Amino acid sequence: MAQLLYLDDLAVGRIFSTHSTTLTLEGCKAFAAEFDPQPFHLDDAAGEGSVFGRLAASGWYTASLTMRLLVEGELTIAGGLIGLGAEMTWPRPTYPGDTLRVETEILAIRVSESKPDRGIVTARNQTLNQHGEPVQVAVVKMLVPRRPAA
Amino acid sequence: MAQLLYLDDLAVGRIFSTHSTTLTLEGCKAFAAEFDPQPFHLDDAAGEGSVFGRLAASGWYTASLTMRLLVEGELTIAGGLIGLGAEMTWPRPTYPGDTLRVETEILAIRVSESKPDRGIVTARNQTLNQHGEPVQVAVVKMLVPRRPAA
Repeated sequence: MAQLLYLDDLAVGRIFSTHSTTLTLEGCKAFAAEFDPQPFHLDDAAGEGSVFGRLAASGWYTASLTMRLLVEGELTIAGGLIGLGAEMTWPRPTYPGDTLRVETEILAIRVSESKPDRGIVTARNQTLNQHGEPVQVAVVKMLVPRRPAA
Repeated sequence: MAQLLYLDDLAVGRIFSTHSTTLTLEGCKAFAAEFDPQPFHLDDAAGEGSVFGRLAASGWYTASLTMRLLVEGELTIAGGLIGLGAEMTWPRPTYPGDTLRVETEILAIRVSESKPDRGIVTARNQTLNQHGEPVQVAVVKMLVPRRPAA
């Protein structure tokens, strides 16, 4: 089992990685059918006629797969990955066949004033495709516990 | 079929609604198993021992259901709902049994300088539970076409 990380174990500038996952056409369509049933996420011809140029994955599928990669990645925070908010952009579409991985950089660490047993960590989660291009950039604020006194 | 809305049809301050959806325990667990397999989203006892107090839905499930509600809602933009980015917060957890709906307010409208056939609309999508409390607030930027010349 991976070592559990507390606020005290993190440092600004530290980088954490994940493994990768490859999107299938079936996975893209299944997600879209349930959560984002727009023609350009479901139908090849509609994708070709859209701003995406071909069938593209829902941005929320990219976001959800990013979460899965993070949960299974190196940033094994004690108490889990609990997000309070996120500033997200999707600089380019994600397509079936793309292989995604996530790189996290710690941007800021702040101990809570009202609850000194925890803090807020700001991190940038960049979801990169197989060309190393960002398809999602999310600056997230996470709730992270401090290491309990021995 | 609903009327398709162009940039020219929108106005700052205008409000759009959606229908509502009720989260089931099965739906929360199925989403978590696929995209956010953390114990407090999957297991009752783990939920009770977490900051959520009981099994809570993944924030990305709330986000994905919000998208579904929006796609089926009143904001029927020509060309679809295409997001470029979002600033999101989750002010409180979502739980199985909660009934969610989304209220959208148009905050800003800007015609593209480089591509005058389209523009960027900024909107606030508030996802509200059955008590009228926001569980997700997303300020989104969307790509919206202008009405073609007759």
